[in-house]
Amino acid sequence: MTHTLVLLRHGESDWNAKNLFTGWVDVPLTDKGRDEAVHGGELIKDAGLLPDVVHTSLLRRAITTAGLALDVADRHWIPVKRSWRLNERHYGALQGKDKKATLEEFGEEQFMTWRRSYDVPPPPIEPGSQFSQDGDPRYADLGADAPRTECLKDVIARFLPYWESDLKPDLQDGKTVLVAAHGNSLRAMVKHLDGVSDDDIVGLNIPTGMPLVYHLDDDFKPTVAGGEYLDPETARAAAEAVANQGR
Amino acid sequence: MTHTLVLLRHGESDWNAKNLFTGWVDVPLTDKGRDEAVHGGELIKDAGLLPDVVHTSLLRRAITTAGLALDVADRHWIPVKRSWRLNERHYGALQGKDKKATLEEFGEEQFMTWRRSYDVPPPPIEPGSQFSQDGDPRYADLGADAPRTECLKDVIARFLPYWESDLKPDLQDGKTVLVAAHGNSLRAMVKHLDGVSDDDIVGLNIPTGMPLVYHLDDDFKPTVAGGEYLDPETARAAAEAVANQGR
Repeated sequence: MTHTLVLLRHGESDWNAKNLFTGWVDVPLTDKGRDEAVHGGELIKDAGLLPDVVHTSLLRRAITTAGLALDVADRHWIPVKRSWRLNERHYGALQGKDKKATLEEFGEEQFMTWRRSYDVPPPPIEPGSQFSQDGDPRYADLGADAPRTECLKDVIARFLPYWESDLKPDLQDGKTVLVAAHGNSLRAMVKHLDGVSDDDIVGLNIPTGMPLVYHLDDDFKPTVAGGEYLDPETARAAAEAVANQGR
Repeated sequence: MTHTLVLLRHGESDWNAKNLFTGWVDVPLTDKGRDEAVHGGELIKDAGLLPDVVHTSLLRRAITTAGLALDVADRHWIPVKRSWRLNERHYGALQGKDKKATLEEFGEEQFMTWRRSYDVPPPPIEPGSQFSQDGDPRYADLGADAPRTECLKDVIARFLPYWESDLKPDLQDGKTVLVAAHGNSLRAMVKHLDGVSDDDIVGLNIPTGMPLVYHLDDDFKPTVAGGEYLDPETARAAAEAVANQGR
């Protein structure tokens, strides 16, 4: 028996459109982002995939994506689980900052280090800063453990306990599992599943709104390395985009 | 310590607007219904209510209502539980039928008996009928126990186990509980909480999109009989509407 896991990255948010660092700031989808979610749901439906449970982050761009996609796929009625461990990478002091202005202020090398290094986080966000999550009730249980900045390595460290405690058990129960989340929390998942190296994972891009399907064997190893996109054309375009990034 | 329970009836659906019997047929909200849900969420937010968990039926008009209301109230990230036991009353063979045509076909007395009697269900829906839920995966676990018609008494009988197994435990844990559901499943809840008689419950109407708040004591008795609407003006209008129904 194989286990079926479907990954769905949320589409365009307000701050993607405005070119601001977002991280844990809880911005809504744009109309384009909502359309991407609906399209993702149509692909899930057309493929005959039947998610039995959906896991989302605590951020509305993933929550809304899951809701729209599942409604279109006629699976809106399945149980829902949410966790901060599926959140986007916390972008520290960069949250709320304009990407172009940040590039100009800090220079390309520092900018690219923050964006693309595996283990160098941006500076931590100041307590009480406008774009911090201080006082946000959804993170109250975390107390002093709530992150103030994260690198991808940190995201992987806080994602893996959720894989063990919640995702793997649902798969083990024979459920088809949908995870609606973010670029970096989905990178964490893919790194774990495919055994991607620390160096390679930062260059791996999962396209938005495109369901990525993994069939996993009894040891939770992918039967097809890297999974399979439901829309091969977009998969190819995404692969090319990744290849071009290396040049 | 009191327990806080918030009831929210979904707003206008496609078939409300078209004057068709709906029951378990899974129709979407109209734009007006979506606006009602958003308004309900605004009232929840303005009242400073902080739902810790939401329970919905398996029908999209309640699921969408919960999603829209919680997003506006900034509580979109709370855990979600769903159950068929919160579904609208199953309307049997009347599902999908025009209300006016049904009135003309069967006469006012029979029509009002089906609509308003406590313990007389409409005829059961035929197996394989267009508007039956035969083969619907969300009810597969029910097998032959899946209802083919229901009177209000039946709704109460299938609602009460969920009150005991899921709603009461969440309240006992100190959670503020939001229930997004339907006219008749919410009647079942109100009947149980307020001890409304079989005769009186059929005449009790909960307005759509208006959060109804119950504070319950340690014995789960309402501190204010009938609960409190967040918008007193609408509550008064609703009370008048109910009074006029008796004339």
